[in-house]
Amino acid sequence: MEPLKQPERQEHTDKQEQFERTLSDWPRLDSATRIELFRAIPLDEAEDLLDCMNVNDQTDLLTSMSLPERRSWLRYLDLDDIADILSELPEGEADKWLELLDARSRDKVSALLAYAEDDAGGLMDPRFARVRSTMTVEAAINYLHIQAQEKIPLEHVYVLDSEQKLLGEVGIDTLLAANSDELVIELADQDVVTCPEDMDQEEVGALFARYSLTAMPVVDEDGHMKGLITADDVVDVILEEGTEDAQKYGGMEALDESYMRTGLGEMIHKRAGWLVLLLIGEMFTASAMAKYQQQLEAIWYLAIFVPLITSSGGNSGSQASALMVRAMAMGEVKLRDWWRVFLRESSSGLVIGIMLGLVGLMRVLLWNYFIDPGIYGSSLMAWRLGATVSLSLVGVVLLGCIAGSMLPFILSLCKQDPASASAPFVATIVDVSGLTVYFTIASLLISSY
Amino acid sequence: MEPLKQPERQEHTDKQEQFERTLSDWPRLDSATRIELFRAIPLDEAEDLLDCMNVNDQTDLLTSMSLPERRSWLRYLDLDDIADILSELPEGEADKWLELLDARSRDKVSALLAYAEDDAGGLMDPRFARVRSTMTVEAAINYLHIQAQEKIPLEHVYVLDSEQKLLGEVGIDTLLAANSDELVIELADQDVVTCPEDMDQEEVGALFARYSLTAMPVVDEDGHMKGLITADDVVDVILEEGTEDAQKYGGMEALDESYMRTGLGEMIHKRAGWLVLLLIGEMFTASAMAKYQQQLEAIWYLAIFVPLITSSGGNSGSQASALMVRAMAMGEVKLRDWWRVFLRESSSGLVIGIMLGLVGLMRVLLWNYFIDPGIYGSSLMAWRLGATVSLSLVGVVLLGCIAGSMLPFILSLCKQDPASASAPFVATIVDVSGLTVYFTIASLLISSY
Repeated sequence: MEPLKQPERQEHTDKQEQFERTLSDWPRLDSATRIELFRAIPLDEAEDLLDCMNVNDQTDLLTSMSLPERRSWLRYLDLDDIADILSELPEGEADKWLELLDARSRDKVSALLAYAEDDAGGLMDPRFARVRSTMTVEAAINYLHIQAQEKIPLEHVYVLDSEQKLLGEVGIDTLLAANSDELVIELADQDVVTCPEDMDQEEVGALFARYSLTAMPVVDEDGHMKGLITADDVVDVILEEGTEDAQKYGGMEALDESYMRTGLGEMIHKRAGWLVLLLIGEMFTASAMAKYQQQLEAIWYLAIFVPLITSSGGNSGSQASALMVRAMAMGEVKLRDWWRVFLRESSSGLVIGIMLGLVGLMRVLLWNYFIDPGIYGSSLMAWRLGATVSLSLVGVVLLGCIAGSMLPFILSLCKQDPASASAPFVATIVDVSGLTVYFTIASLLISSY
Repeated sequence: MEPLKQPERQEHTDKQEQFERTLSDWPRLDSATRIELFRAIPLDEAEDLLDCMNVNDQTDLLTSMSLPERRSWLRYLDLDDIADILSELPEGEADKWLELLDARSRDKVSALLAYAEDDAGGLMDPRFARVRSTMTVEAAINYLHIQAQEKIPLEHVYVLDSEQKLLGEVGIDTLLAANSDELVIELADQDVVTCPEDMDQEEVGALFARYSLTAMPVVDEDGHMKGLITADDVVDVILEEGTEDAQKYGGMEALDESYMRTGLGEMIHKRAGWLVLLLIGEMFTASAMAKYQQQLEAIWYLAIFVPLITSSGGNSGSQASALMVRAMAMGEVKLRDWWRVFLRESSSGLVIGIMLGLVGLMRVLLWNYFIDPGIYGSSLMAWRLGATVSLSLVGVVLLGCIAGSMLPFILSLCKQDPASASAPFVATIVDVSGLTVYFTIASLLISSY
């Protein structure tokens, strides 16, 4: 049998590869090519393709369709996906599309549209498998038969009372393993993790991770079950939030679309704002340095260590803020932990600062004795400069660790996203203070002699 | 009825809150307090707590238990979780724990231990619901009854041939909705997305996201199904990989544990390495500037714009690399796209550079005419300096965008993680080249007169 089966297996893998290629080429195609391609492939592949697209691409494709074609594809899609698509459209247009649905779906989609897209209510599917608490196992299985014929997935079955309040969850495996005359409520697991309709999707993702959930019911304040969020929706949310955080951390506003699909104007808009702000912040470095005109005029080589000092502060700040932003996003570190973090970062910063300080000292002495003898005038001057550079490195690394780790706490306290404690933002803060440290030490150790 | 139900609901919410508090306090407790607390709570809460802990905490807790206690808890856990725990233990110890399991589980766990923890094989659960392709619906449901009694979850049922090769998937809803004498193979969906045992977990996560999966079978090269990965495992993987990427992007080695549980020595080790390397890289800035001794001695205020110029290059580089690292991690941008990215980044960089350049020019002129008249000697000198600063800003922003976006491609080409194109790494590259741009322009526009 073995050799006969091989080609089938190969064919399956080839098909998966071909499909993935189509999917990854999709963003590069224009709307006309897309609809042409979509119409050309077999129906089951077209279904898979539509399911795997993001909501922008789905909207784009449906927009290029004829009315009857759009109607039949809208009826194929899940209600929560339809709601996402409609929320991309201008209001008048969305109403026209709604009319393509049957009355029952139209009502459910309208209800979903009332939720914010980023809330639990906007993520949930209002269709889920349910049984009544007073049913016997036999009645429950028969009732699930009917729901299965309506294409309601049975992976997660919930036990509701007569008022649709959630009482528990019961696995289809438990129902199948039980005696047919047992009562459903006695088999139900009543410890169900739930969330309210208005919970932010980032928190929903954290709950899924904390409890290793595959699904979570959404309930209103009276305990009525409104819908079900499944882990596949949450995977998308987590990836999306991860991208937004990464972009904010890189020092820009988060993009609404993927890199390739963001227009050049939009891209410049999202980036230039922060860069101009940071540039203005960085202008304080010029003012700070201008105060040390006398030192700079007298000792030209003080200037050449400026980038080395400021960048070391920025780099250690970038590490500290990356650690803190992520630990806060994962819920590992809370606001009340700030003091413990402060102590940790001060000690790490001090040790790392001393290590960098020694490297810096070696650099100055090496140049003076071996590479470019006499560049700093005298041996004594080289040692003084070395001490200045190395003490400054200790200072700026310490500053970087403290500023980088505390800024996310401050942002969080001001109800801002800690991810905005970007590497550039921290670097700018540390640059201004770091230069003051450097020139103050230089005044004490060099210029005053 | 309403007011009677309210307290129950409240109780449930309180319980969930109490549980979350225990869970979030857990990392702060020492081993003795943990085991004490664990023994004090009701059994069902203890089960939930153990399920929600990460593998380090699970191992820690089980280690503090007596032998009979450990045996009973090990038998409670899923086989893939046991394998993860055993892989944390020293070899001799792991063997002793293995002996606490019954023979069948021991074999399965041993098989799991052979897979790398970060591979699909290490993520999968070897227990999954299966039916034979030649069964009728009635026989299949009966067979699933038996599996349900063995506590095998029935959310996903796979159709295998007599050699355990995967032929398709069939929902329990489909089985329940079908006629009892239909053949299972005729109901099966044969388009199942699968992955090989050695697929990296990051790719597994990407597949789940791309196809919106809730579960994916792992098959060997001959198509035998070895186990099942479910979306809840993938949520953990994605969050873990996101943290690793964020830390790398912040310019350090990724931590193995959470921030609070990483020892100070380990923390310094993971951070100091990159900082020293970056410091050594940054030393080229001192050498680069030393070449312009003549200019620096003659025109002291050239130095005061150095931090402003270098930081603007670093900031725009940080944005570009954050965008690219994330777009590559999400599979939106592939290696072959480098030229399109290069063109996009060059044009964005040029436009943003000109905007920053204008702001820089205004800064110089403002100081000269209003804030500190005559600081740059003459009006002509102020204009020349303004032109130097603003042209340099255009240059470094352009450099930053190009270096920041191309470095992830270069790393990826060298089989390195693009996430190592950290903000500090990019900033260091841009600092050295940016200073050369600045002093070259200064030589042409100012010093030569």
